[in-house]
Amino acid sequence: MQYVLYGDQIIKRDQASIDMEDRGYNFGDGIYEVVYIYGGKPFSMEEHFKRFAESAAKLEMKLPYTLETIIDLTVKLIDANKIHNGIVYIQMTRGASPRNHLFDRESSCLITGFARKMDPPVQAQENGVKTYLTEDIRWLRCDIKSLNLLGNTMAKRKAADHGCHEALQHREGTCTEGSSSNLFIIKNGTLYTHPATNLILNGITRQHILTIANEENVDVTEQAFTTDDLLEADEVFISSTTMEIAPVIAVTGDKKGTYPIGPITRFLQKKLKEKINQPTVLN
Amino acid sequence: MQYVLYGDQIIKRDQASIDMEDRGYNFGDGIYEVVYIYGGKPFSMEEHFKRFAESAAKLEMKLPYTLETIIDLTVKLIDANKIHNGIVYIQMTRGASPRNHLFDRESSCLITGFARKMDPPVQAQENGVKTYLTEDIRWLRCDIKSLNLLGNTMAKRKAADHGCHEALQHREGTCTEGSSSNLFIIKNGTLYTHPATNLILNGITRQHILTIANEENVDVTEQAFTTDDLLEADEVFISSTTMEIAPVIAVTGDKKGTYPIGPITRFLQKKLKEKINQPTVLN
Repeated sequence: MQYVLYGDQIIKRDQASIDMEDRGYNFGDGIYEVVYIYGGKPFSMEEHFKRFAESAAKLEMKLPYTLETIIDLTVKLIDANKIHNGIVYIQMTRGASPRNHLFDRESSCLITGFARKMDPPVQAQENGVKTYLTEDIRWLRCDIKSLNLLGNTMAKRKAADHGCHEALQHREGTCTEGSSSNLFIIKNGTLYTHPATNLILNGITRQHILTIANEENVDVTEQAFTTDDLLEADEVFISSTTMEIAPVIAVTGDKKGTYPIGPITRFLQKKLKEKINQPTVLN
Repeated sequence: MQYVLYGDQIIKRDQASIDMEDRGYNFGDGIYEVVYIYGGKPFSMEEHFKRFAESAAKLEMKLPYTLETIIDLTVKLIDANKIHNGIVYIQMTRGASPRNHLFDRESSCLITGFARKMDPPVQAQENGVKTYLTEDIRWLRCDIKSLNLLGNTMAKRKAADHGCHEALQHREGTCTEGSSSNLFIIKNGTLYTHPATNLILNGITRQHILTIANEENVDVTEQAFTTDDLLEADEVFISSTTMEIAPVIAVTGDKKGTYPIGPITRFLQKKLKEKINQPTVLN
């Protein structure tokens, strides 16, 4: 990673310096997006930056440039780093000001970003992942893709400590989502996932899956389900920008169960891959 | 503010540079303390850094130096900036590493800090403050003094938009605390405050108040109360390191009420001032 985005400039990594009173550093006061790059082309970039703007609006942050400019800068960042397969990460904080809980809506926000090579997690997609079911301790605005991620990182750590790839979270028995993924179950041919309320992040991949399900006549309902429903599911999978769709083969933690990798999961994986490979969707 | 703390060095403010992949900047992955300085002397410094160590332990962060060294550095920072009345702010993040939700318990943590002149808010202490009652949307580990503060900053913004000094928060009708303060009510001579569970930050000033109440035979109970109890209270006040005790004279927002500044509030203010002015407690 040689070059990074700093404001509206592509600069060398070692020249990027963040102020110790940047509100991102003192309050986690900021937002971010991660876009996957396939063969040099970012997938669903416009959808990602539309959500970026929505997150900014929810936190009353002013974008310092138009979305078009931010997208242009992101493309430049990808190109500067010659990324074939990988991710581009863009964040925006409310910038530097003397530390004070009370923020100014007119603050000059700072955008930074980096791009990094990363191969798609083929093994997780093929063989599935183990997951750890734990209490969702996050705040009540998980719909904002914010930098307040301690709940997520603590859940992820717990999962790893139990030999699991991802944490699945529940609020008093109602499943919400993974620590960095959305959660789906299939029962009697119907696909279930938590509705896009304040309790989950409405993943771009999640949205693609819902669209595919509708296009392909897979019964689908955005309806919350319980940890018991999770255990009794026929198939379970998680989705995210970096993982696409990964089958869940086991749950441990607050409940324990195992699952086969089922036909609907495989079908949705295949259709999502097709969408990714469609030149028209490749921005 | 000429000098800041960076690691174990006191350096010039403009030489402090934070890495764009410091986990504090990407995840809010860190903790902090604010200590008030009265006449050049930090108040309750040891209690603050004991809590600092507890917050670190709860997030499984390793202190890079002993608490004694951190306290020494803090004193040096105060002295370098010649602070008579003011605050010293110390934070610790999990440091820089390639962005990944999964953290490493062995990460080398970065301590930074600054000191700033600030006069005690005498007017708020004398005349009281207006407050705005709103839903507590924060995570379920408010006992950790972490950098994940968006819920707090959003509540504070809402309060200011309604001409209020502070936000009071409630979870489905149960009062928790302010956005940067603890909340107390007095009813029929008894002092109530939320118990020090995962839902509040156990303020150092809060602890002093409970000690004073016990010493001075003020009936006190750490018991959660409702927004209705808040409205029907005889006296209400908030406490924090920077405010000490500030009487609440009005609540607006989800409920509305006004309060006199009562005798128990005044008594506790006086006793807290005495504690602050006791040479033996002054570190």
